[in-house]
Amino acid sequence: MPYYIGDVITDPKRLIARTPEKFEETGIRVRLNTRVESIETDRGEVILENGERLSYDVLVMGTGAEAALPDIPGTTRDGIFTLKNLRDGINIKEYIKDNGCRRAVIVGAGFIAMEMSEALRNLGLETSIVYRGELPVKKWDPVFSGVVLEELTKNGVSFIGHHSPVAVERGSDARLCLVTDKEKIEADVIIFALGVKPNTRLVREAGLETGESGAIRVDSSQHTSHEEIFAVGDCCESYHRVSKKWVYTPLGDIANKQGRVAGRNIAGYPMIFPGIVGAQSFKMFDLEVAMTGLDERGAEKSGYSPASNIIWGSPVARSMNRGQKLGLKLIADRDSGKLLGAQAVGQSGAVSRINILSACLWSGMGLDEIGYMDLAYSPSFSGAWDMIHTAAQILEKKL
Amino acid sequence: MPYYIGDVITDPKRLIARTPEKFEETGIRVRLNTRVESIETDRGEVILENGERLSYDVLVMGTGAEAALPDIPGTTRDGIFTLKNLRDGINIKEYIKDNGCRRAVIVGAGFIAMEMSEALRNLGLETSIVYRGELPVKKWDPVFSGVVLEELTKNGVSFIGHHSPVAVERGSDARLCLVTDKEKIEADVIIFALGVKPNTRLVREAGLETGESGAIRVDSSQHTSHEEIFAVGDCCESYHRVSKKWVYTPLGDIANKQGRVAGRNIAGYPMIFPGIVGAQSFKMFDLEVAMTGLDERGAEKSGYSPASNIIWGSPVARSMNRGQKLGLKLIADRDSGKLLGAQAVGQSGAVSRINILSACLWSGMGLDEIGYMDLAYSPSFSGAWDMIHTAAQILEKKL
Repeated sequence: MPYYIGDVITDPKRLIARTPEKFEETGIRVRLNTRVESIETDRGEVILENGERLSYDVLVMGTGAEAALPDIPGTTRDGIFTLKNLRDGINIKEYIKDNGCRRAVIVGAGFIAMEMSEALRNLGLETSIVYRGELPVKKWDPVFSGVVLEELTKNGVSFIGHHSPVAVERGSDARLCLVTDKEKIEADVIIFALGVKPNTRLVREAGLETGESGAIRVDSSQHTSHEEIFAVGDCCESYHRVSKKWVYTPLGDIANKQGRVAGRNIAGYPMIFPGIVGAQSFKMFDLEVAMTGLDERGAEKSGYSPASNIIWGSPVARSMNRGQKLGLKLIADRDSGKLLGAQAVGQSGAVSRINILSACLWSGMGLDEIGYMDLAYSPSFSGAWDMIHTAAQILEKKL
Repeated sequence: MPYYIGDVITDPKRLIARTPEKFEETGIRVRLNTRVESIETDRGEVILENGERLSYDVLVMGTGAEAALPDIPGTTRDGIFTLKNLRDGINIKEYIKDNGCRRAVIVGAGFIAMEMSEALRNLGLETSIVYRGELPVKKWDPVFSGVVLEELTKNGVSFIGHHSPVAVERGSDARLCLVTDKEKIEADVIIFALGVKPNTRLVREAGLETGESGAIRVDSSQHTSHEEIFAVGDCCESYHRVSKKWVYTPLGDIANKQGRVAGRNIAGYPMIFPGIVGAQSFKMFDLEVAMTGLDERGAEKSGYSPASNIIWGSPVARSMNRGQKLGLKLIADRDSGKLLGAQAVGQSGAVSRINILSACLWSGMGLDEIGYMDLAYSPSFSGAWDMIHTAAQILEKKL
C-alpha cells in the first residue's frame, strides 16, 4: 500500500480535513505530522521518528525546501517570519491582526519580498525592504530593477539598500528592532525573504547524490542515484535546456511537472521530464515582471558569447495605448544567433511576451526567425510589429 | 530614382501632407492619386493613366486588396460602405454623424463585422448583423462562435442568421432597407463586411502568375513569376508553415513583414520570409478571440489526420480568478502527435495562449512537449499547470 508521509501545510479547516480521506479512497495511506528519521536504502525501509519501519519498493522524495534564516542573533523572537507555504502566510496575517502591527520590515529583495511588500501595504502597514544590494530583484537587469524600485516607491514601500542585518533585538517604538550594519530599524513584524534551500538531510545521510547546487541529483525520469528512489520538486535539480546544466530552480510549476513524471514512471508509463528554460514571473502592485532563459552572466558560464539589448515600447498598438510602457530585454549568442534569454517589465504584456519567448527558447529558435515569426496581431494586443520582432531584429544587428 | 505610386489612403490632414515630403527626402518620388494603366514587363515600363511611361529595373506590387461588395442591386446608394482602410472608417463615422443615423446593419460576420459592431454600439446605434450562416466567425469552432454570439447579444447587437441579402432599397422608417431572402431590414447605414479580394488586375494582364487563391504567386524572397517584379502584402500569397501550402491571408502584420523582406532583397541584403502559421486575433466588447494554425478541415485538406479537444478553465490561478472563463481548443495530428492549430476565446488570456501556441507551431512541437513546456508561472497569470499544458495532455490521450 502506498504511503504519504508528512505535513499537509495548508489551511487546516479548508483542506487537511478532506485530504487524508480523499487519499485513502484511492488506496493511499496518509500519515500527517509524521517525521521520517532516516532511510535504510539497503533494506528498502523508511524509519519513522517513533521507530516504526515502513518498507518500500519505490520511494519518492518530495521533501521540498525551507526558507533560509540568516545566522544572526534574535531570529527566534516572536514576530519574525519566513514565507514558504500557505500556513506561513496565514500565520503572518493573523499575527499582524492579533498584535495590531503597524510597521513591517522585509529582509531580502527577491520576488517573494516584492509580493509580500504589496500584501503588507494592502493591510495598511508601513513597509520597508532591507537589502544588502543596491537594487531589488537582482536576477533582472539593473534597468528593470530600477523600474521595480520605482514601483515600490510609488506604492509607499521604502527600499533600504546596502544594509545587511546583524541582529534582531527588542524594539522601543515598535515590538522589534532590526539591527543592520548601518542602523537600527524598528518594526512590529519582520519577514526574512532570503530564498530557500533544499531539504536534503535524509537523502544525504542515506548516501544519495546531490548536485553542485546542493539539491538532489536526478535524471530525466526523476530517478535519484538510487534506482528505486525518485525525487521531485523543490528538493531536487532540473535540467536547464539553454544552459544544458542541471540547476536548482525551486518553483511550483516545475514541481508539479516533476511529480507527474515520477508518478508515470513509477506506474509503468515511462516518460521523460523535458526540462526547463527558467521561465518565471511575478506581479507587484501594477507591474508585471518576468524572465526566461539565461542572463549574460549565466550565458557566459554556460560557454556562450552573449550580446543583449533592451528596448522600450508599447505593449499594444500605439493608437490603443493609454500611457503603458513595456521594457523588453533579449540575450542572444553571438556565435549561433540563437536566443538565450529574455526579461520584461511593464504594467501589462510582460508575461505574455516572456511566455512566447520561452516557447522560442524551448525549441532553440534564432533571432532571425523570432524577428519574423507569426503572432496573432490585433491593435488591442500589439503593434503590427510586436516588440518581440523589433527587439530580435535590433539585437541581430548587434551580433 | 525610385517611385511610389498610388493613394495614401489615410486622414488627409494628419498624414498625406507630410508623407510625400518625407519620401522625397530619402530620394523617393511620390505620385499620389496616380493610376497605373498597365505594366509592360518586356520593356520594363509602367504606363500611367495619362500615357506617361516610367521605366523600372525593379518593380514592387503592393496593390493590396479591396473589400468585396455583393452583386445585388442598390449597393451604390448613399449610406452603404465597406471598411478596408482608415479613410473608410472616417467616412462611416462622418456619415453617421452628419445624417444623424440611428440604425445600422452589418452584412457579414467575420472579425471586421465583429469589431464594427462594437464601434457602432459605442456610437449609440441600434446595430444588427445579417449573415447567411447560423453563427458568427465561422473560422472558429461553433462552440466558440456561440460565445461570440452571446457577447453580441449581451451588448445589444442583434444577430440575424440564415439571411442572404438580395437588394438594397430606399427605406421608409430609415434611410435604407436591406432586402434579404427572408425579410426587409431598415437601416440608416449598411456596412458590407464580406471579406476582401486581392487587387491583381495589373499583374494578370501583364502575364504574372497568380496562385490557386487568386492572389499573386510569390516565392520566399517575395519574387513574383517575373524575377524583377516583387509582390508584398494583401495582393499576394504567403507560405503556411503548417499546411505547407501557399495561402491567401491578407493581414497587416504579414504585409509588414513581406514588405521588409522584399526591401532587403532589392537592396542587396538577401533574406527569406519564413512564412506564417495563421495566427490572428480580434477583440470585441469584453472578449478576446484568437486562433492559429489549422482547424480540422484545413488539417484534413493538408493531409493530416486531426484530432481536437476543447477545454474550459481559468486564465489565471483559480484563487485569483474573478469569474473569468477561458476556452481553449487544440487540434493535433494523430500520426505525428504534432500540434496543428489552436483557438481560444475569453475575457482575457486568449491571445497570450494563442501566441505561445503559435511559437510552438512555428517550430513544429508535439503535444508531448507542449504538455510539459516551461512557462512563467505566477498565480496572477496562470495556474501551476497552464491551460495549455492541460489541453495538450488531454488531447494527447485522445490521439
